[in-house]
Amino acid sequence: MLTYRNGLEEMPSYDGVERDYRIKVNANESTMNLPPLVEERVINRLSYVAFNRYPNEEYYSLVEQIARNFSVKENQILLGGGSSEIIEKIFHTFGGNGHKVVYPTPSFSMYKIYAKAAESQAVPFELDKNFDVDVDGFIKTVRESRADLAVICNPNNPTGNTLTVDDIEKIAKSIDCAFLIDEAYVEFYGHSAFKLVAKYPNLIVARTFSKAYGLAGARVGYMIANADVTRMIGKSFMPYHMNTLSLATADIVYQMRDEFTPRIQMTIAERKRISEQLKNIPALEVFPSHTNFILIRHEKAEQLKNYLESIDIGVRYFSPSAQALKNCLRISIGTRAENDEVFNVISNWLKSS
Amino acid sequence: MLTYRNGLEEMPSYDGVERDYRIKVNANESTMNLPPLVEERVINRLSYVAFNRYPNEEYYSLVEQIARNFSVKENQILLGGGSSEIIEKIFHTFGGNGHKVVYPTPSFSMYKIYAKAAESQAVPFELDKNFDVDVDGFIKTVRESRADLAVICNPNNPTGNTLTVDDIEKIAKSIDCAFLIDEAYVEFYGHSAFKLVAKYPNLIVARTFSKAYGLAGARVGYMIANADVTRMIGKSFMPYHMNTLSLATADIVYQMRDEFTPRIQMTIAERKRISEQLKNIPALEVFPSHTNFILIRHEKAEQLKNYLESIDIGVRYFSPSAQALKNCLRISIGTRAENDEVFNVISNWLKSS
Repeated sequence: MLTYRNGLEEMPSYDGVERDYRIKVNANESTMNLPPLVEERVINRLSYVAFNRYPNEEYYSLVEQIARNFSVKENQILLGGGSSEIIEKIFHTFGGNGHKVVYPTPSFSMYKIYAKAAESQAVPFELDKNFDVDVDGFIKTVRESRADLAVICNPNNPTGNTLTVDDIEKIAKSIDCAFLIDEAYVEFYGHSAFKLVAKYPNLIVARTFSKAYGLAGARVGYMIANADVTRMIGKSFMPYHMNTLSLATADIVYQMRDEFTPRIQMTIAERKRISEQLKNIPALEVFPSHTNFILIRHEKAEQLKNYLESIDIGVRYFSPSAQALKNCLRISIGTRAENDEVFNVISNWLKSS
Repeated sequence: MLTYRNGLEEMPSYDGVERDYRIKVNANESTMNLPPLVEERVINRLSYVAFNRYPNEEYYSLVEQIARNFSVKENQILLGGGSSEIIEKIFHTFGGNGHKVVYPTPSFSMYKIYAKAAESQAVPFELDKNFDVDVDGFIKTVRESRADLAVICNPNNPTGNTLTVDDIEKIAKSIDCAFLIDEAYVEFYGHSAFKLVAKYPNLIVARTFSKAYGLAGARVGYMIANADVTRMIGKSFMPYHMNTLSLATADIVYQMRDEFTPRIQMTIAERKRISEQLKNIPALEVFPSHTNFILIRHEKAEQLKNYLESIDIGVRYFSPSAQALKNCLRISIGTRAENDEVFNVISNWLKSS
């Protein structure tokens, strides 16, 4: 008789099979591959990789660069397989039987799964009807539940809205458990909480190369926290969890990150332009966004999603089980031509249906 | 107050910082980078990678190839970050509070850490003085401890010896808990237990690209088991745990695996040649090996290791705490020139000291 880990059978299997679309704006990826200059240097660097050797200085080289950029010590940085793995390990570090984790809902759908994987008790905190965090209510929930970990996604996925750094500081000073700020989309917002790490020993900031830096395929993320916290989270990672190819790629991308600035600015400009256009469509609700995507709501969202799929445009539709996201679609910002096409299709379909 | 996961503070931190050596025979890596033809195709393939997209069909493409090669179904295969991650997740799947895992000692030093990470109770099974597994004793231990998972490393690292497939079958039919065969070095032995998977629902075979296929830097391993078991182990992996670059690389390597046959044969021939030469050194014990390394024992092992390091040759020395490996050194097989140099240095140093 095989005896599996308690609770594992109930672990939701993630239906992670991405399909290809002609216009793929369903996963908040960068719709452009690496800038040509960066790609050239990455491929050149990969041609020097010692495939046969275990990863070694590549990890520390990237840590060193990131530490220098944020003016923190190297022992305050950890790398992971996307911010996904970083967040998973933070949930693990502060989790376990009897431990509680407070996270917003609707937000990144994996928080629920990470809580389950960590064998923690999930305490979802409901956002208000504009998807904003009631800061006092959040603090109260964290305190009253005696949480071990509190999570804020800023800007929030899939809603696009934000907290100010002052709001985050207010939370940080009012709770004494670990406090994770998931900043996967922060480059499109511009206001990171990372400076608060120097002031609040409980604060952890998670970042990723997957969005603004267009490296979703390489799976590289990082976190910044105080050295003690970093050391403990480090214990949740196994040796050689990062591979040389991804590390070498991210190292070049980080060295050349200025090359991504025009793209980030373009994405922000396009988000504003398309948001304004969408607002002119009757009966369509457009949520304010500081990310590389826009959340919209329309009573025909499901049919619209099906129509878009039928013409090979992939957007993100939320399962009807998520009541707060009922009738919502999330559309990533692509190139100007992609955005124009997606907008025109949506506008015409809603007009004629 | 930060409240960490129970037991995490006691989690041993792995001192995984590899250093470079002129001759690096300490980590059982292939001492040669990819064969030129393979490397050319890998670099070409990497130049087509969609860095910006989440991994997608690359995972399934490699699974499909592996399934075809072993004549099993695709739902019997999982990929992981080296067999390390595969083994970690298997320990997790069958682990947890009150669960027990039986593994040999001395063997792969990570088993102890994986057991701790899974929050399982470790039941180390001591190998005899020749490092052989007493098969009946092993079965008895698994049964009497009511283990949830039993592990055999075949060939065994760091000792190099083996069980026959018949021995493995004898164990498989005598225990009813999950039974993992870690075959990281099996390509240098030639006798895999994978065919037993069809017969024993509790059997899991873990393999890696890190050793015979020279991809330690890419972190790719795989496992073969029955579909039900595979489905449950799959629940222990997070989505997008594998990256596109490593998957694409392993895909090419696996397509071109015949290119590695001459190297594997060379490694086996060199292992035999060097083993014979080492046996001629007085007072040096040489353990029989079916891997890409040789374990030796000499009362001056520690000084020898220090001397080798001083001339920039890295071998693996075992911490004096591991009593069974007292005075042992593990030396990976390198190129013929490297092996000659290592042998001559050892032989001359032992003669003159």
